[in-house]
Amino acid sequence: MTSRNVLILPGDGIGPEIVAQAVRVLDKVNEKFALGVTHESALVGGSAYDETGSPLPEATLTKAKAADAILLGAVGGPKWDGLDMSVRPEKGLLGLRSNLDLFSNLRPAILYPQLADASSLKPEIVAGLDILIVRELTGGIYFGQPRGIRTLENGEREGFNTYVYNESEIRRIAHSAFIAARQRGKRVCSIDKSNVLEVTVLWKEIMEEVAKEYPDVELSHMLVDNAAMQLVRAPKQFDVMVTGNMFGDILSDAAAMLTGSIGMLPSASLNAEGRGMYEPCHGSAPDIAGKGIANPLATILSVAMMLRYSLDAKDAADAIEAAVSNVLDQGLRTSDIASEGNKVVGTEEMGNAVLAAL
Amino acid sequence: MTSRNVLILPGDGIGPEIVAQAVRVLDKVNEKFALGVTHESALVGGSAYDETGSPLPEATLTKAKAADAILLGAVGGPKWDGLDMSVRPEKGLLGLRSNLDLFSNLRPAILYPQLADASSLKPEIVAGLDILIVRELTGGIYFGQPRGIRTLENGEREGFNTYVYNESEIRRIAHSAFIAARQRGKRVCSIDKSNVLEVTVLWKEIMEEVAKEYPDVELSHMLVDNAAMQLVRAPKQFDVMVTGNMFGDILSDAAAMLTGSIGMLPSASLNAEGRGMYEPCHGSAPDIAGKGIANPLATILSVAMMLRYSLDAKDAADAIEAAVSNVLDQGLRTSDIASEGNKVVGTEEMGNAVLAAL
Ligand SMILES: CC(C)[C@H](C(=O)O)[C@@H](O)C(=O)O
Ligand SMILES: CC(C)[C@H](C(=O)O)[C@@H](O)C(=O)O
Repeated sequence: MTSRNVLILPGDGIGPEIVAQAVRVLDKVNEKFALGVTHESALVGGSAYDETGSPLPEATLTKAKAADAILLGAVGGPKWDGLDMSVRPEKGLLGLRSNLDLFSNLRPAILYPQLADASSLKPEIVAGLDILIVRELTGGIYFGQPRGIRTLENGEREGFNTYVYNESEIRRIAHSAFIAARQRGKRVCSIDKSNVLEVTVLWKEIMEEVAKEYPDVELSHMLVDNAAMQLVRAPKQFDVMVTGNMFGDILSDAAAMLTGSIGMLPSASLNAEGRGMYEPCHGSAPDIAGKGIANPLATILSVAMMLRYSLDAKDAADAIEAAVSNVLDQGLRTSDIASEGNKVVGTEEMGNAVLAAL
Repeated sequence: MTSRNVLILPGDGIGPEIVAQAVRVLDKVNEKFALGVTHESALVGGSAYDETGSPLPEATLTKAKAADAILLGAVGGPKWDGLDMSVRPEKGLLGLRSNLDLFSNLRPAILYPQLADASSLKPEIVAGLDILIVRELTGGIYFGQPRGIRTLENGEREGFNTYVYNESEIRRIAHSAFIAARQRGKRVCSIDKSNVLEVTVLWKEIMEEVAKEYPDVELSHMLVDNAAMQLVRAPKQFDVMVTGNMFGDILSDAAAMLTGSIGMLPSASLNAEGRGMYEPCHGSAPDIAGKGIANPLATILSVAMMLRYSLDAKDAADAIEAAVSNVLDQGLRTSDIASEGNKVVGTEEMGNAVLAAL
C-alpha cells in the first residue's frame, strides 16, 4: 500500500479546535477503512510567528513538501495585524500555496437542504444550489511583481501591485475547470473584466482555446461585476465558475455566503499531481476562538475532500459526508447554523456526533 | 442666473430610449421651476464609434468639458465586442471619467419599499436598505500603467495590469466618503485587501489619516472578500462604503442587485468642483434594446441627482423623486420590476406617468 502521510496545520483562532475534531474523524475512518494514514502536526500562521518568528517555518515547509496531503485550520487574527506584511500569518498560507504549487483551488458552494433556512436569500432562489468555484491560487495580483509602496519625486507615496498571468498559468487552471465540469453539469463560466483589463483579455482567449479540447463542456464568459450581481440574483444559473486569484477570492466568499452556512463549506487546493491542501472556506474567527462553539463541519468535510481527491479513499469520504448529513438530520447544530427547533451543540459535541454516526 | 448647460449622451443599447424619457422629465421641471437649463446631445460609445471611428469623438469631449453636467444613458454591446480595446465603447466612458477627472463615483443602493418583493433576499434582510458606495473612478487598476499583453522569451504571452494609487488620489476620495457620511449615518467602512496587496495598505493608512479630520464620522475597515460576504449576509450593517475602482465596480453591482431593482438606481460621478456625469447603475441591456420595454426610472432619478448635486436645484430634484414614488404607488411597473398585481408598462408610458405625476 502507498504511504498516506497527512500534515496537520491547526493554525490560529478557532483553527486548533475545529482541526482537533476533524483529526478524530480522520482517525476513525482510518481505522474503519484500514487506510494506513499517518499524520503529524506543524505550526503555521500567527502561532508559528509567535513561536519561531516566521509564519511559515522551514520545518513546516519541509514537512508540507513531503506530505501526501495537508489539512489546514485557518490563519490570522487581530493580534498580528500590526506586523509587517512579510511576516503576517497570511504569508504562511500564501507561502504554502506558492511553494507547493497549489494552483487549483476548488470551492464548492452547496446548500444543505437541512440548512435551507440559514440563507439570507429567498428559499426558491437557493434551494438545491450547487456551484463549484475554481479559483487560480498561485498567480495573479496575489503574487505579481513589481509590488510595494514607493516614494515619488514629489515626496508622496504610491502603492502598487501587478496583476499578471501568462498563458501556461491560465491554461492549467482552465483544464482544472473543464475536468471538474465534466464530472458535474458540464458548464464552465469564465469570469473576467475583459472590457477593461488586458490581462483578462488573454485569460478569455486561452479559456476559448482550451475549451476546444472539451467539446462536451459548454464555455461561457461573464464580466466580474455582472457575475457578482448574478450570484445574488440567480445563483443556480452557474455550474462551474473559473476565475483568477483576486476575483476568485471575492466571488467564492460571496457564493459561500449565499448558502448561509459558510461554516459547512470545505475547499481543496491542488497541484498538478493532485496533491493538495484542504481547509474550511471560513476564516480563523478570532472572536469566538477558545469558546468551544466553532463549527467543525467544514473542516470535517475538508477531510472527506482530502480522502477523495488526494488519498484515493472514496468510500471513507462518502462515509464522512453521510455521517455529517445524518447529524444534521438529527437536528444538531452549532450556533452559526442553528435556527428554531434545533439542538445547539458545541465544537466537541458536534465532533462526537459525527463520530457516533460513522 | 448662472448658466446650466447639460450635455446629453444617449449612448448605446437601451440608452437612447431611457434617456429620451429622462430628457422629457428634465424639460418639464426646467419649465416648472424656471431653471434655465439648456441641453444638447452628442455621441459616445459604440454608436460614436460607428459614426466617427472613435468611442469618444473630440467634439463630444469638447462639449463635455464645457457642460455644467452630463446625463449619460449607457454604452457597449456585443456588436462591438470584437473591436480592439482602444476603440471599444467602454473607452468612451472611461475617457470621459478620466478627462473630466470625475474621480468620485456615488452609487446608492436603496430599497424602494414599493419594490421590496423584487429582491432575491429575504424581506427582513433588505427592508429599509440604504447604502451609499463611494467608488474611486479615475485611478487604480483601470488606469494603471504599465499594462498590456507581451510576448515572453519562451514565446508565451503574458497579460499584465497595474493596480496603483498615490496618496492624493486616496485622500480626495476619502474626503468624498467622509463628507457624504456626514449627511447620512456618519459611518464609513473602507474596503481593502490589506492582508495581501500593498497598494491597499497605503489606502487603509490614508483613510485613517483623513478620518482624523472628521471626528464625528466613524471609520471601520473590512477586507473585500468579507465585504462581499457581508453584503449578502447583512447589508444593512453598512452606511457608506468607500473603495477603489475595481473593488467598487464589483461591490456596487452586488449591492445594487440586493435591492432586486437595479433598474431604479442612479449614480453620480463627480470632479473636485462638484461638476459631474450622471447615469443609471445598469448597463446598455442590448437584449431588450429597441423594444420599448426598458425601465427609464434609474435615468430619470439620475436627472434628480444631477439637479441636486451639480445644478443647485434641490426642489426640482425632490419633485422628480416624489413623482417616481407616486408612480410606484400607483402600481405601475416596467417588466424588470413587476410582480403580481402590478400594471406592466413600457418605457414611454412610464415616462408619461412620471410627467403626469409632476
Ligand atoms: C487569508 C487570505 C490571504 C486568503 C486569500 O485572500 O486568499 C483568504 O481570504 C482565502 O480566501 O483563502
Ligand atoms: C462599462 C464598464 C467599463 C464600467 C466599469 O467597469 O466601470 C461599468 O461596469 C461601470 O461600473 O460603470
